[in-house]
Amino acid sequence: MNRNETITHQLDHRSIRFFKDRPVAEEDLQAILAVGERTASSVGAQSVTVIRMTNQGLKDQLMKICGQEYVAEAPELFVFVVNLYRNFQLAKEKGADPHPPTMNHFMQGAADAHLMAQNMMNAIESLGLGGCFLGNILNDVDKEIELLDLPPYTLPILGMIFGHPDDDPQLKPRLDMAHRVHENGYEKADSYLDLVEDYDQEMTHYYDTRNKNQRSDSFSKQMASHMTTSSENRDRILKSIQKQGFDLGLDLEES
Amino acid sequence: MNRNETITHQLDHRSIRFFKDRPVAEEDLQAILAVGERTASSVGAQSVTVIRMTNQGLKDQLMKICGQEYVAEAPELFVFVVNLYRNFQLAKEKGADPHPPTMNHFMQGAADAHLMAQNMMNAIESLGLGGCFLGNILNDVDKEIELLDLPPYTLPILGMIFGHPDDDPQLKPRLDMAHRVHENGYEKADSYLDLVEDYDQEMTHYYDTRNKNQRSDSFSKQMASHMTTSSENRDRILKSIQKQGFDLGLDLEES
Repeated sequence: MNRNETITHQLDHRSIRFFKDRPVAEEDLQAILAVGERTASSVGAQSVTVIRMTNQGLKDQLMKICGQEYVAEAPELFVFVVNLYRNFQLAKEKGADPHPPTMNHFMQGAADAHLMAQNMMNAIESLGLGGCFLGNILNDVDKEIELLDLPPYTLPILGMIFGHPDDDPQLKPRLDMAHRVHENGYEKADSYLDLVEDYDQEMTHYYDTRNKNQRSDSFSKQMASHMTTSSENRDRILKSIQKQGFDLGLDLEES
Repeated sequence: MNRNETITHQLDHRSIRFFKDRPVAEEDLQAILAVGERTASSVGAQSVTVIRMTNQGLKDQLMKICGQEYVAEAPELFVFVVNLYRNFQLAKEKGADPHPPTMNHFMQGAADAHLMAQNMMNAIESLGLGGCFLGNILNDVDKEIELLDLPPYTLPILGMIFGHPDDDPQLKPRLDMAHRVHENGYEKADSYLDLVEDYDQEMTHYYDTRNKNQRSDSFSKQMASHMTTSSENRDRILKSIQKQGFDLGLDLEES
C-alpha cells in the first residue's frame, strides 16, 4: 500500500471527544475554513452554511439536544446546515420565480455539508488537532431550528467538534473493506452472520479492552438493536424537512 | 494561515474529468480503499457499499444515465450506495424482528457515503491522482438499481471517477467563506445580490477565460435557473427511496 503523510493521518482517524483547555489557533482555523471554501459542491450551488458556536449558553442548549456532555466543552463546535434559503432569495432578487426547493436540492445540500465536514476533518487531523462528527444533531432538528434562528429552506444535518486532543482512544475496528466493495453489481452473501464473524470477535475484544464506557458487545448484536429500535424524532425527519418548506415531491407523477 | 502538504492538496482541489490511458496502481488503490475503511461512520453501522465498475458495458450504460461521456472513459468509477440491506439481514439472522429501515437509517447511510467519498478523494489527490464526484448518479436511481442489481433497502447516492489526470483546469472560484460561516445563529443578508456581487464578477471572468465549454455566466444567473428548473426524476427521489422499502415516516405522530 502506498502511504504518505495525508494517508497516515487518515488511517489513524479516531473520534476525539475530549480536548485540552486551549483554543484552536487563528492560523489553524483559517486553514480549516479555507479548506471548507474549496470543497467540491453539487452543481456549484454551495448549499451549506456553517454555524460556528461560540456562545456558551447556546452550546449548553445544543449539548442537551445531542445528549452528549462533551459537546458543550469542546473548544470548537460547528453545525453544518443544508441551506437553500440563500439561493432561493438570490433567485427571487434576480427576478426569477423559484418553486420551493425540492428533495433534489435538499440532497445536494446534504452532500455539500458532508463533503465539507470530512474535508475539514482531514485538515484538522493534518494539523495535529482532533475532533469528531456529531450525528446526534439529528436528534431534534426542530428545536435546533429555533435555537439557531434558521429560516425556511434550511436544516441542520451534521455537527463537528474539534480542538487539541486530550484523549488517545484505540482505533475502532472496522468491517473489512473486502466486504464493502463489490464489483459491477451488488454481491449478496449467503450468511451475514458468517460474513461478520471475525469482525464480531474484533469488536467484542475492542469493547472488552478499552478504558471508557466498557461494555461487552459485538457488531451483529449492535445492528440487531439498531435495526429494531425506533429513533423517535429522527425517523420523522421528513416532516421537519417539509415544515421547513421543502417540496417532498411525493405527488409528482412517474416519468 | 497554517499550511502543510495535506492542506496544500486540499486547496488545489479541482474536478478532474479526463485521464491518461493508464490504470491506477494496485498500491494506490489499496491505500484509497484502506482510507475508505477507516472513515467515520454514523453509529458505526457502516451503511455504505462501494460498487467498483470494471465492466465496460456497464460503465457505458451508467454513462448514459449520468449524461456525461467522460464517465465511461475514466480508469476508475465508484458508485457509493446507501446500504441498509446488510444490516437488516444481519439483524434478522441474529433473531431480531427488524422494522423496515427508516429515513434516519437512510440519512445515516447517505452521511457514511459522502464522508467516505470525500475521505477517499483526499487520499486520491495526495497520491498525485485526480478525480471528481458524480452528482448525476441521482439522475435516474431506478435505472441504476436495475443495472447494479441492488436489493431492497439500498440506493445509489454518489459517484466518483479517478485516475492519472490528463487535464489541468483552473480553480473554480468559490463564494467567500465569510458569507458561509455564521456565528451562533443564522445571519440573514439584506440583499443577496449585493452579497454575491464580487463573486458574480469572478465567476463571469472564470467562464470567459476558461478553455472548454465557454459560456458567459454568473453565480446569481445560475442560481436563478437552478432554483426554477425542475430536475424531473431527481425531484422524485423519495418515491425511489420508498420503492426500495424505506419507511418515510410521514405517518408518525408528533412527539
